[in-house]
Amino acid sequence: MRPLLKVALVGAGPGDADLITLRGMRYLQEADVVLADALIDPAFRRLVGGVTWIDVGKRGFNTRDGKPNCPQHQITSQLVLYARCGLRVIRLKGGDPSLFARGEEEIAALKAARIEFEVVPGVSAALAAAAATQRPLTRRARGRSVTLQTAVFDEQGQPTLATTFGGVNPQDHSDSLVLYMVGQQIEKTATYLVAQGWAKDTPVVLVSNAGSDRQVVSEGTLISLNQLACRHHGQPTVLTLGVAATPVIGSKVPGLHAVEATNIAA
Amino acid sequence: MRPLLKVALVGAGPGDADLITLRGMRYLQEADVVLADALIDPAFRRLVGGVTWIDVGKRGFNTRDGKPNCPQHQITSQLVLYARCGLRVIRLKGGDPSLFARGEEEIAALKAARIEFEVVPGVSAALAAAAATQRPLTRRARGRSVTLQTAVFDEQGQPTLATTFGGVNPQDHSDSLVLYMVGQQIEKTATYLVAQGWAKDTPVVLVSNAGSDRQVVSEGTLISLNQLACRHHGQPTVLTLGVAATPVIGSKVPGLHAVEATNIAA
Repeated sequence: MRPLLKVALVGAGPGDADLITLRGMRYLQEADVVLADALIDPAFRRLVGGVTWIDVGKRGFNTRDGKPNCPQHQITSQLVLYARCGLRVIRLKGGDPSLFARGEEEIAALKAARIEFEVVPGVSAALAAAAATQRPLTRRARGRSVTLQTAVFDEQGQPTLATTFGGVNPQDHSDSLVLYMVGQQIEKTATYLVAQGWAKDTPVVLVSNAGSDRQVVSEGTLISLNQLACRHHGQPTVLTLGVAATPVIGSKVPGLHAVEATNIAA
Repeated sequence: MRPLLKVALVGAGPGDADLITLRGMRYLQEADVVLADALIDPAFRRLVGGVTWIDVGKRGFNTRDGKPNCPQHQITSQLVLYARCGLRVIRLKGGDPSLFARGEEEIAALKAARIEFEVVPGVSAALAAAAATQRPLTRRARGRSVTLQTAVFDEQGQPTLATTFGGVNPQDHSDSLVLYMVGQQIEKTATYLVAQGWAKDTPVVLVSNAGSDRQVVSEGTLISLNQLACRHHGQPTVLTLGVAATPVIGSKVPGLHAVEATNIAA
């Protein structure tokens, strides 16, 4: 068994605490201090006794409960400070530390401080949404590429940075697209996707709180996205679009003969 | 705790057995039968006693050891048959069941047979490679989109299906690209990426057996990919290209004051 180094950036997975990896959970139990994202399942805190748990209050998409976000540089400073004090520190992040998780800033600071660390991957929201809806992100032959992306818009509804949403021209699009953190801007995203040449009847699925008991799933087409939006506002939401959003249709296996349903386990 | 339904498609994660989720491991321990991919860490079999373990021999990229691949329809048939017999069956897949895992065929067969099932997500190889190399797949401002894709070529080096590798035109490319299952065709992939307009000095990282003790990592630029290939041939390999392939440079946190390295944990 690999022991915890001084510091680990650990992916907590997308929702319920049992979607963390075995290694991630073992490291949590060996830690002195945990710096946890605000959206982390509260069950984690109960599962790991004896550690100092610090909620770094990073909500990302939502501060409407009045609690301010903890600025990234303060989180990063705490990480370095505790490690320098000789503590075993876990930075616990929702989903996976390498996807839309500001991992770069924390890795840069740890490297500058010459602190040894490990990144423990986790299940990202796109994968959890696909599992929950039983709609694989890739499909044989017709769905072989999927682009993961975020969308940030200015007040005029224009993306604040060059954002191609899977390709500027319709023929260049990925087969499927998953947009993270759309909870606050579903309408702007819909308008922009149509302007980018995605057909209005492109299948879409919205999943909020993927992989948790509070999960909300809506499906439709790109043109109906605005009607679907109200159930998802203000929640951590991923939008899946294209081939990956289509339901899998039941289809019998060729050559599978009917067998009697006898319980041979008994 | 959620109990195992009759059938679950479970992501084993990318390599070492401790990268499976807690839920995935619990389901394995509750199962009667496990249908396991050939590339699954042998440690899994030791960790779950008392189940019937069936190696369905799906290597995907490699049959050079002389063992034939088990055709997909035979795996799917077994899954349905065991479930109909009343057994609790796990289909254990490397990585995540929703990404390049032929999940669609198995879900379609289970739906046709009206068998209840759950998909348990797992850590996919792209995420494991990013964790192992400490290079996040997304970066603030300049790396906000990543395309996951496979590449399959014919004998002439042409993709066998429409494959845009992150966008046909250079200006449409995703910021980063991760190509799965390149172990047999790194050279063809390099040639094709250059033809598609990716610059020859685009950073690349190859990771074989991501997340396991046998992990091999090489880095360079697109033009050097052919020289890097020999260390990775015939192994399960992901190629990361673009912003996500660049190393994170150490950078101090603004406002972080030096503190004495005293061990306050003692």
